[in-house]
Amino acid sequence: MQHTFKHKVYHVLEVARGKKNGVNWLVNILIMSIIALNTVAIILHSVRSIRREFDEVFVDFEYFSAVFFTIEYCLRLWVCTENEKYKHPIWGRLRYMTSTGGIIDLLAILPFYVSHFTSDTGLIRILRLFRVFRLFKFSRYVHALRVIEGVIKEKREELVLSLVFLIFLLLIASSVMYYLESPAQPRVFSSIPATLWWGITTITSIGYGDIYPVTILGKVFGGIIAISGIAIIALPTGILASGFAEHINIHKKEREKHRFCPHCGKELP
Amino acid sequence: MQHTFKHKVYHVLEVARGKKNGVNWLVNILIMSIIALNTVAIILHSVRSIRREFDEVFVDFEYFSAVFFTIEYCLRLWVCTENEKYKHPIWGRLRYMTSTGGIIDLLAILPFYVSHFTSDTGLIRILRLFRVFRLFKFSRYVHALRVIEGVIKEKREELVLSLVFLIFLLLIASSVMYYLESPAQPRVFSSIPATLWWGITTITSIGYGDIYPVTILGKVFGGIIAISGIAIIALPTGILASGFAEHINIHKKEREKHRFCPHCGKELP
Amino acid sequence: MQHTFKHKVYHVLEVARGKKNGVNWLVNILIMSIIALNTVAIILHSVRSIRREFDEVFVDFEYFSAVFFTIEYCLRLWVCTENEKYKHPIWGRLRYMTSTGGIIDLLAILPFYVSHFTSDTGLIRILRLFRVFRLFKFSRYVHALRVIEGVIKEKREELVLSLVFLIFLLLIASSVMYYLESPAQPRVFSSIPATLWWGITTITSIGYGDIYPVTILGKVFGGIIAISGIAIIALPTGILASGFAEHINIHKKEREKHRFCPHCGKELP
Amino acid sequence: MQHTFKHKVYHVLEVARGKKNGVNWLVNILIMSIIALNTVAIILHSVRSIRREFDEVFVDFEYFSAVFFTIEYCLRLWVCTENEKYKHPIWGRLRYMTSTGGIIDLLAILPFYVSHFTSDTGLIRILRLFRVFRLFKFSRYVHALRVIEGVIKEKREELVLSLVFLIFLLLIASSVMYYLESPAQPRVFSSIPATLWWGITTITSIGYGDIYPVTILGKVFGGIIAISGIAIIALPTGILASGFAEHINIHKKEREKHRFCPHCGKELP
Repeated sequence: MQHTFKHKVYHVLEVARGKKNGVNWLVNILIMSIIALNTVAIILHSVRSIRREFDEVFVDFEYFSAVFFTIEYCLRLWVCTENEKYKHPIWGRLRYMTSTGGIIDLLAILPFYVSHFTSDTGLIRILRLFRVFRLFKFSRYVHALRVIEGVIKEKREELVLSLVFLIFLLLIASSVMYYLESPAQPRVFSSIPATLWWGITTITSIGYGDIYPVTILGKVFGGIIAISGIAIIALPTGILASGFAEHINIHKKEREKHRFCPHCGKELP
Repeated sequence: MQHTFKHKVYHVLEVARGKKNGVNWLVNILIMSIIALNTVAIILHSVRSIRREFDEVFVDFEYFSAVFFTIEYCLRLWVCTENEKYKHPIWGRLRYMTSTGGIIDLLAILPFYVSHFTSDTGLIRILRLFRVFRLFKFSRYVHALRVIEGVIKEKREELVLSLVFLIFLLLIASSVMYYLESPAQPRVFSSIPATLWWGITTITSIGYGDIYPVTILGKVFGGIIAISGIAIIALPTGILASGFAEHINIHKKEREKHRFCPHCGKELP
Repeated sequence: MQHTFKHKVYHVLEVARGKKNGVNWLVNILIMSIIALNTVAIILHSVRSIRREFDEVFVDFEYFSAVFFTIEYCLRLWVCTENEKYKHPIWGRLRYMTSTGGIIDLLAILPFYVSHFTSDTGLIRILRLFRVFRLFKFSRYVHALRVIEGVIKEKREELVLSLVFLIFLLLIASSVMYYLESPAQPRVFSSIPATLWWGITTITSIGYGDIYPVTILGKVFGGIIAISGIAIIALPTGILASGFAEHINIHKKEREKHRFCPHCGKELP
Repeated sequence: MQHTFKHKVYHVLEVARGKKNGVNWLVNILIMSIIALNTVAIILHSVRSIRREFDEVFVDFEYFSAVFFTIEYCLRLWVCTENEKYKHPIWGRLRYMTSTGGIIDLLAILPFYVSHFTSDTGLIRILRLFRVFRLFKFSRYVHALRVIEGVIKEKREELVLSLVFLIFLLLIASSVMYYLESPAQPRVFSSIPATLWWGITTITSIGYGDIYPVTILGKVFGGIIAISGIAIIALPTGILASGFAEHINIHKKEREKHRFCPHCGKELP
């Protein structure tokens, strides 16, 4: 019956769990391999010598990938109604299309089709860039990210605050530095937006060396900002460290929740 | 009655809490928007091409902002007596003026007025810089900073000590490096204060590349300092991490506070 | 009897524990000293002036080391059957040869012998490089690494995920940056693999200054990646911090293990 | 009586604790001020323009400091017998002289006297450098360092291991990188010791930009080392974070150790 076949397809496309065997697992591996090959193709295609040598291979592989991902997308759209969340034949499918997974899958194939309707090299360039987002198709298969995701979600508020702190320090630092350094280096510290680049490379301690203060006042202020940058980097680290520690404690607590003395039977405090 | 109106104004200017609705909340959003627009204006004004194109817009917006913040400041000063802390009509208002919020609000408008009494371009430049402190007006609205503030306050002593460690290492490192490198690079390592810049860019691991040792001894010593710098950065991170972990434990303890003796059933202290 | 002598040799070659005395300990110190001297020799040999001056010393020391390590390897292979794990005279010895320690010991001497059968300077150069792996012979003697190894092993999953995160960010960041910057700097950002170098030096906050964006869009995107890089560095730090904290708690728990029910006095499980 | 006077001097020179008052506290402040002034003098003396202008002031201040610290040293040596640890008039004083504090105090004055017996500018330069160690005289007064010192001491073993890890990675990385890069950049990567400088600036993520790989293999290997460097920096941070957390828990445990139910009087588990 069609229903049974549809249900089978749904389960085959689902993320494989448990035993590493069967059609489900093989299809998973196949999709992941093609995503990985796409990643390799995108990287190698950017190297001129390789692009020239194997131009046809890249074009063929792109056609193959587009067709493969289109079939995958259509199948997913067809069978998604098997999932309780997307049960309704029309609204359910629309909801699936606007889910994170659905959007990623669409973005992975759309550029290929759009590029056939334009001859604008600038637009084709941008569409080519969008193929990078095929990497995000991987996210469906990385279960283990859940622990990290969980910790980040629980500490979201504090992490966002660290970012607010960082942006605040960045704006103040860059504005003041612009006033201190622009008279001495009018070309390098040409505006506050240009100085923001200094701010970022300093607070994140990258220091490319393309922009740095040369006046005494600028160096004194830059030094203070550099030291403040340590604290700004220490904040999210400390937050995440406590988040991971807490996560472990919660797990332990859950295991230890109901303990009783095995001899007298009374609950232990 | 006037008192009722004054009280209403006081509550409208207060930081909105709870339900996101009503005049109070709208006034909060309005003030925050104008602070944000001021931030954008300060940043864009520093870009020469934008400054030239929209010079009048910037001047008009500056006049508008100054008037707006002046009215806000006067209203806050008028109604602050509604607060128990600043009850007295004269001393209370003076106390409010010298509170952190009062000083920030005054500094946000003062440069505008002072700049009208001078034609010294240097002074006007500095007054322009002071407009950056309008960003600090935001601090009134960021409640959530309290957790981070709380952790930093509790660990203040250890964090200050980390800073003392850092300054100590900085002074020793720069003094020794000056003696090691100045004979080889008399222009770059021209004095200990100049070498302090090397010390900061090394210990914070920025490394712009404008100043670094070239002699063997200088590199050996620089390497030791660079590795010590890891510890100096690890210290505040470790302190903050334990601070956040402790903070969470305290919260848990507070929730668990009302515990009962499992034997006699009475509440435990 | 031969067996007794073989057993003695086995114990003498074993890693010394407890009292710092006896033949066992002396042989340990001797082997470690020769590994250390080899490290020093490798480093000094790369300095041209020293190499020219003391060329014969290096050659002699290399012969001596090769002979010494060969004797050590043969003895270890001979006596390894004393260990329960490698009991069988043939399969046991083969198993020992393919164990981590066995491979390291073989790699430490093999290049010396292979280099006698070739006159290809390129190959000799590579064989010379392999002598660096003599350093790994140290690993047998560093017991204390176990705590760190234990923590890393327990947190392996999360640490690998941090690495997956990092590689994912690296690929996305480099691909996008290549499309943004290659038109402005076609020589520096010549391909995505070349841009990966920018990605690594940015996310790890090294910032050599040989490759960085110059366009506005490139700087905006680069800034976002730089700030994301903080999180990527904060993740493993947080994971390791919680790992060390957990490790300590487990030890404490183990010490507290034998606890008794305060009411009936019997031991708790 | 002399004894009473000696005892008084001993207490006046001791580090002040508790109430900020009395001769003891004033003498402490005086000594600290003179150490701080010496630090300022050392820094300013290195600036040529200031040195030329105020040369006599520096000379006078150096004479004053040397005399002051000599008197302080002699007094400490005279009264140290009041301390139980250094009771014996001869051996006690010798033990005091070889204690950390005694050596620092001696090193703070010795260079001044030695410099009078030599006219070798090189030696005088080095002696001048040794005055930097006068900063260490501060260490006597920083009580609060004890918490940090305690944590570092307790985690000494793990921290030393992190350092061993770092040095091991450094040696392997630099040796391999030398073989990979020296053919392409024979001047920059001239030897393994020269490449160690690359290793340090990379693992600590400083990246001055004076030395970095340019070949593809060198960049691939350099990237791996750069990412490993994150782990190497994460290790001590994680260790210190767990150390601080543990320190706090121990304090809490001590406070909570003996708790009893206030109603039934039984000890709480």
